[in-house]
Amino acid sequence: MRPRIVLFGDSITEQSFRSGGWGASLADTYSRKADVLVRGYGGYNTRWALFLLHHIFPLDSSIKAPAATTVFFGANDAALQGRNNERQHVPVEEYKDNLQKIVQHLKKASPTMLVVLITPPPVDEEGRMEFARSQYGEKAMTQPERTNEMAGVYARQCVELAKELGVCSIDIWSKMQETEGWQKKFLSDGLHLTPEGNAVVHQEVVKVFSEAWLSAAEMPYDFPHHSKIVPQDPGKVFQQKCW
Amino acid sequence: MRPRIVLFGDSITEQSFRSGGWGASLADTYSRKADVLVRGYGGYNTRWALFLLHHIFPLDSSIKAPAATTVFFGANDAALQGRNNERQHVPVEEYKDNLQKIVQHLKKASPTMLVVLITPPPVDEEGRMEFARSQYGEKAMTQPERTNEMAGVYARQCVELAKELGVCSIDIWSKMQETEGWQKKFLSDGLHLTPEGNAVVHQEVVKVFSEAWLSAAEMPYDFPHHSKIVPQDPGKVFQQKCW
Repeated sequence: MRPRIVLFGDSITEQSFRSGGWGASLADTYSRKADVLVRGYGGYNTRWALFLLHHIFPLDSSIKAPAATTVFFGANDAALQGRNNERQHVPVEEYKDNLQKIVQHLKKASPTMLVVLITPPPVDEEGRMEFARSQYGEKAMTQPERTNEMAGVYARQCVELAKELGVCSIDIWSKMQETEGWQKKFLSDGLHLTPEGNAVVHQEVVKVFSEAWLSAAEMPYDFPHHSKIVPQDPGKVFQQKCW
Repeated sequence: MRPRIVLFGDSITEQSFRSGGWGASLADTYSRKADVLVRGYGGYNTRWALFLLHHIFPLDSSIKAPAATTVFFGANDAALQGRNNERQHVPVEEYKDNLQKIVQHLKKASPTMLVVLITPPPVDEEGRMEFARSQYGEKAMTQPERTNEMAGVYARQCVELAKELGVCSIDIWSKMQETEGWQKKFLSDGLHLTPEGNAVVHQEVVKVFSEAWLSAAEMPYDFPHHSKIVPQDPGKVFQQKCW
């Protein structure tokens, strides 16, 4: 069974196999080398994600644990109290604590698992308001339910925790804001990703994986490239261990 | 472990997780319901695919066999003798025989597996010549290495075999040619698929899967939709069997 890469997260992970999505691109990058499985749950925060942990990453399974897992939560945890999506809000201290529980569980499932924490992306408050108006018209909220500043507070806690636990992290909140016009370039509705935004996540995940030990370029093909097959004796190359 | 859908085929399967690819779209369609795994091998014909069968679909595995498998070969088998890609050529009788061996193996791995044979796509000979010139300049072949007529011969054998064995098939060769301008609309280099061509394959696979018993719409979510979670008692819904 080939190595498995699990993408665990909220809607930004769930939607990652749409056209131009970072999950699909990752599956393409690791084609013939590792399987990419999506475990994305739209609307979920870290508090609710804890209920899924034992099902998605069982500790008593006969099946080998994933080689790598991305943990991409926080966009919903950071929803503001007293606003439209307050049911999703999780206080930042609990967010950090929940992330720690997730990492500890994954490391218990497999001490060698490559765990990569991804911070919530930045928020374009204007984009969120426009989206709300397009959905709810005049009934739309007049104040954003998420702010970029608050997403940044969660992002910093995520990065800090990764350092404390010695796992990798991707500060996508900061990374995206390095590019001028990130608000519309990378975000489709102020929160979810455009194809360009997906490309940034894909690129960063590949970078972190490669800097660790999961470099697609250095992993062997599962079977020989077709150019290595000798038509007169096709079976020969399949008996060899190195192609 | 959730149901698995394996995509077994040549480059048209291997490339199916690129932007707009039919494999990625299928993974999105079955999100939270089934895992889609790509087993695509660029350049392979059915003769060479036989060497992979026992590795990809082991008969003695403790892991449950896939719920469904698409078998999408023929584009390379149909490469003409005496032309540039003749090393990939497999006579049509052998192509049919190899496909039969593949189906029989899959049914041995799991009698309930939903097996869907997909014919080679049509060939735009002009597109192939243009592609060859862009790659090899003046050294390019002056005659196409594949013809649409020959791809059609293989497509008919594929459909006929599916009927004989009582498995599903998708005649993508015929389906695509129903649309005017299919040559450039669906094919990027006369053989491989554009995003629009990928959308046709995705649509046809979803249709056949749904008409059998693998309808994404009728399959349950793996875990509750976030709207079903009661913030004051989030654990409750996870204890219930129906969401």
